[in-house]
Parts: sequence; C-alpha cells; structure tokens
Amino acid sequence: MPLLSTQRIHTGKVLNLDIDTVEFPDGTTGTLEMIRHPGASAVLPFLDNPAEPDPRALLIRQFRHAAAGDIWEIPAGRLDPGEAPVDCARRELAEETGYAASRIEPLNSILTTPGFTDEVIHLFVATGLAAGTARREADEFVETHEVRWSEVLRLVQAGEIRDGKTLAAILYLQAFRR
Amino acid sequence: MPLLSTQRIHTGKVLNLDIDTVEFPDGTTGTLEMIRHPGASAVLPFLDNPAEPDPRALLIRQFRHAAAGDIWEIPAGRLDPGEAPVDCARRELAEETGYAASRIEPLNSILTTPGFTDEVIHLFVATGLAAGTARREADEFVETHEVRWSEVLRLVQAGEIRDGKTLAAILYLQAFRR
Repeated sequence: MPLLSTQRIHTGKVLNLDIDTVEFPDGTTGTLEMIRHPGASAVLPFLDNPAEPDPRALLIRQFRHAAAGDIWEIPAGRLDPGEAPVDCARRELAEETGYAASRIEPLNSILTTPGFTDEVIHLFVATGLAAGTARREADEFVETHEVRWSEVLRLVQAGEIRDGKTLAAILYLQAFRR
Repeated sequence: MPLLSTQRIHTGKVLNLDIDTVEFPDGTTGTLEMIRHPGASAVLPFLDNPAEPDPRALLIRQFRHAAAGDIWEIPAGRLDPGEAPVDCARRELAEETGYAASRIEPLNSILTTPGFTDEVIHLFVATGLAAGTARREADEFVETHEVRWSEVLRLVQAGEIRDGKTLAAILYLQAFRR
C-alpha cells in the first residue's frame, strides 16, 4: 500500500503523530492517523531458574497516567537511537530494578496496537540476576516486587495484570516454556 | 496523580491527542502525551469446540499501514458510543467474517500500550458459529482463514503472529483453558 504523502501533526517527547495519505489495496486513497514510535524492549526477569516449580519473577508497579493509577508491568522502555533491542532490555532492567542479568533470551516481538501505531516491543526473559542500584528517570515512579510464578498467574486470571506486553511475555512463557 | 490541565492537539478519526499537565506522585509537575481512544473489543472465534484436540479457529489477514503489509489478527474494532464490549465483539465478528456466534465469553482486558494511550481492548472467545455475509467498512481489507490450533501455535512460535491483542487472546487460552 503506497504512502502518497505524510503530514507531521505533532512532534513529541515520546511519540510523533502523522496524518498519512495512502493508496489502499483496491486503488482508492484515504488518510490514516499514525503514531510513529521508535520501538521498545521489555524483559521478564526471574530470580530463580524458570524451570523450577514456582520460581520468583520480578514485576514492577508503576504509576501510569493512562490507567489513572499504579499497574503491574515488567521492566521496559524505548530504544535509544541505534540501540539493539537486547541492549535496551538489559539497560531498562538495570535502570528500573537495579538488577544485572547474566543471560537475556528473546521471546518474541509484538505490535502493540497496529491500528494506529508502528510501535514494536521486543520481549525478553532475563535470568542469572545480580542485585545493584536502580537509576530511574525523573518521571518514573516504579516499585519492584518479587512475585512467585503461581501468584503471577493468579494476578493474570484475576484481571489484575492488564498491560499488553506484560501479559504477552507471561502467557508466552506459560504456554510454551514451563 | 491529579490532572492539572489538558490541551487537545488533534481531534481525529480514530484517536485524539492531548498534552496533559499532571502532578506526579512526588509533587513535581510535568507534561505527558496521551492518545485518547474509545476502547475496543476483539474476539477469538472457534469453528469447533475449543476443548477438541486440534480445533479450527478463525484468524484474519488484514492490511495494516503501520506494519507495512498484511498481518494476522483476530476480528476486532472500536466500541461505538455506549456500546457494551460483548456487543462490539459480536458486531465486529459479523462485520469482518460474516459469522454469528451463539456464545461469546470474556477472557480478559488489556491496556495495549499504557505509556501513551488509554486504549483498552476487551478480549472474548466465540463458539457456536453460524456462517453469514461479511459487511466490511470501506477501508478494511480483510481475509478470513480457518486455522487449526496447532498451526496457530506454530505461527506464534515462528513470530508470524505479532499483534498484541491476538497474542494475548491465543496465549491466554493456551495457558489456562486448553
């Protein structure tokens, strides 16, 4: 579907908004609002071997204005220019929780909501953690929690974990890896 | 976290963009870009009983400008004003695939990407399908595919299913229901 023209409506801190004029598969043309995003990485960290019966994972509680309160998430953040997704995952884990990981493995990548944004989040699992000191950004309000896997699954089924990337990582692991 | 003021930057077809000035938990203030979205429903439809060994699900292939091509998804769409999520799921299933469902059950709800939007997608499973005629909107380019569950899981593990809501629904079902 060819892009015929694009108009930058807003250049922002986190995202840019474009109005794209495109030619649809049937030859007609139309406009689409497109949030352009640099992409992100997110990482599900384990304090214990994930193959153990009920290992401890690390989740964060983070204030999200969009959710009007604190929500459960995994550590995540935007890619810096030129940064590899795995390096971003390692950096965000350290910044948000203080932990360094000796091993980070890719799970999969998700399009968060392709109806209006090109945002991709690369998902990872981190193991072999060593504690350090968190270095949060000024507008990040994050608490780290050690949560047993059985409790993680309970929180999902109770509807208390609602963040898309966090659900994708947890459920991928539960469906295929454990 | 109190909202101190909001400025509407863009009023669009699919979304609105606001710049919100907020007071953070530590008492400082700052601005956040916020994509305001009415919410949506998405539905994973089964042609066979999902408890069968390898049931057929319905997936759609849809052109997404944000992904620069066709991607695998489940039927989904925005809530009309005042519309209940389950009614939206039923309507979108009929519009995009032509199928009516005798039974629609909720799975969970996801915040697609709470760093910059309040979008919530309500996920459902549909069973007891009866074929009818699709009534797609003008800018929707959708193909319906019958896919065995084993093939659905293969597409997930191969990284070919990347849409967040679609992964969340498939993986939730695989983790907890089957």
